[in-house]
Amino acid sequence: MKIGLIGYGNIGRFLLQSINHNHLIKDGKITAISGRNPELGQKIADEYDAEYIQEVNQLIESDVDLVIEAATVEVVKKHAAAILKSGKDFLVISVGALADQSFYEQLHLICEKFGTKLLLPSGAIGGLDILKAAKSIGQLETVSITTRKPPKALPGAPLDQETVLFSGCAEDAIQKFPQNINVSIILSLAGIGPAKTAVTIIADPKVDKNNHTIEASGSFGKLSVKVENDPMPENPKTSYLAVLSVISALQSKDALIQMG
Amino acid sequence: MKIGLIGYGNIGRFLLQSINHNHLIKDGKITAISGRNPELGQKIADEYDAEYIQEVNQLIESDVDLVIEAATVEVVKKHAAAILKSGKDFLVISVGALADQSFYEQLHLICEKFGTKLLLPSGAIGGLDILKAAKSIGQLETVSITTRKPPKALPGAPLDQETVLFSGCAEDAIQKFPQNINVSIILSLAGIGPAKTAVTIIADPKVDKNNHTIEASGSFGKLSVKVENDPMPENPKTSYLAVLSVISALQSKDALIQMG
Repeated sequence: MKIGLIGYGNIGRFLLQSINHNHLIKDGKITAISGRNPELGQKIADEYDAEYIQEVNQLIESDVDLVIEAATVEVVKKHAAAILKSGKDFLVISVGALADQSFYEQLHLICEKFGTKLLLPSGAIGGLDILKAAKSIGQLETVSITTRKPPKALPGAPLDQETVLFSGCAEDAIQKFPQNINVSIILSLAGIGPAKTAVTIIADPKVDKNNHTIEASGSFGKLSVKVENDPMPENPKTSYLAVLSVISALQSKDALIQMG
Repeated sequence: MKIGLIGYGNIGRFLLQSINHNHLIKDGKITAISGRNPELGQKIADEYDAEYIQEVNQLIESDVDLVIEAATVEVVKKHAAAILKSGKDFLVISVGALADQSFYEQLHLICEKFGTKLLLPSGAIGGLDILKAAKSIGQLETVSITTRKPPKALPGAPLDQETVLFSGCAEDAIQKFPQNINVSIILSLAGIGPAKTAVTIIADPKVDKNNHTIEASGSFGKLSVKVENDPMPENPKTSYLAVLSVISALQSKDALIQMG
């Protein structure tokens, strides 16, 4: 599998290291990278034995089988349709782009028509296997998430007392609390949609790491998932699990033994 | 997708209802069923517009694309290799058959050689997406599961006090506590293997439903998943989630938008 990568910030470089140097994707290699800074792009491409292609449009015309976006919401909005129409699968990290329901549905139709796949890693959360199973026959009733972060990670939050910064549905959280947008969107898509998913965001001086508690109920029973996220090495702003879930999504894509 | 089904007990009939009557698998239909009781088999086949094929060997020679096993460990052991060699994918519910590591590895080699897939639904548990992500680069450190069941579900357990019936590694749990075999195996395969996965089984008079608490740690952070299982309608011995996870595994198999 030849992979094209858009973006070579911390996450992009972690993927280059994991895939091209540590060979974590069987028969997979990042053969081309694309991004706005040609000098840095060429340097990184050389380091990881890939080709530097400045324009995403040219990457789309290249022979890669799958494209990974590790850039911005704007890159997804601008190029997702063309990538999926070109016959390439597309793994999206900036899932905030999918907050627009009509855009999401448009991509779904394109995948159907062109036989391509949109891959959405589970990011900093999980337990989505249970939500998917529970809703497989339409009997998932409630889904909520409570995110606690250290106050210093939340600009303007009081440093000395627990403060609820947001409480409402995921649809509103996506608009009003973009720092948490990826988690709100992934949970909504895996579960019962942004209008019915409850989101609470708390600045909590008692925690020193981000944590998420997902609760759900339905005909299957009850579920509670708590994840305490350690940050990515050398990048305290990104949950390590979010990056690992990208590797995992790629490993699962063509796995001979599929679990979950 | 033409599906062959082995077994038409409670689980098999639930799948027939969900797939053939409620159309929960896009473009999927159970076209053939196989099992030991010809009279009942023919009656059920007629009810769900499928063909009855008594012998699994003949089912393997038919034109189905995928086979679901909803029968016994023995059926998996006897027929898995032939099914996967015939170019059909194979979804296994009696995962107890995979306790034998050399059998599991043999099936993996067959899948590789014949380009087929072995599908293992997550059963009565979940959160496996996080375990898979955490171990994608090999940094999943500890995995444990504590299962609590009402004493009446555990023959011989005292009815009036909490009693630890088993505490040890999954490898021993698989041998000594076959009632819990599916959960022990799936968790071991998704995580760090049967020798390192810790299993505790408790008869607890305070609970009226089975529940499982999975805890894990690694470089990603910490995870705790608690699932309280409601039973399947009309079958109090089977967790509803275990059956829903079969539908979900089939829905995910060819999904255009893959999450997690």
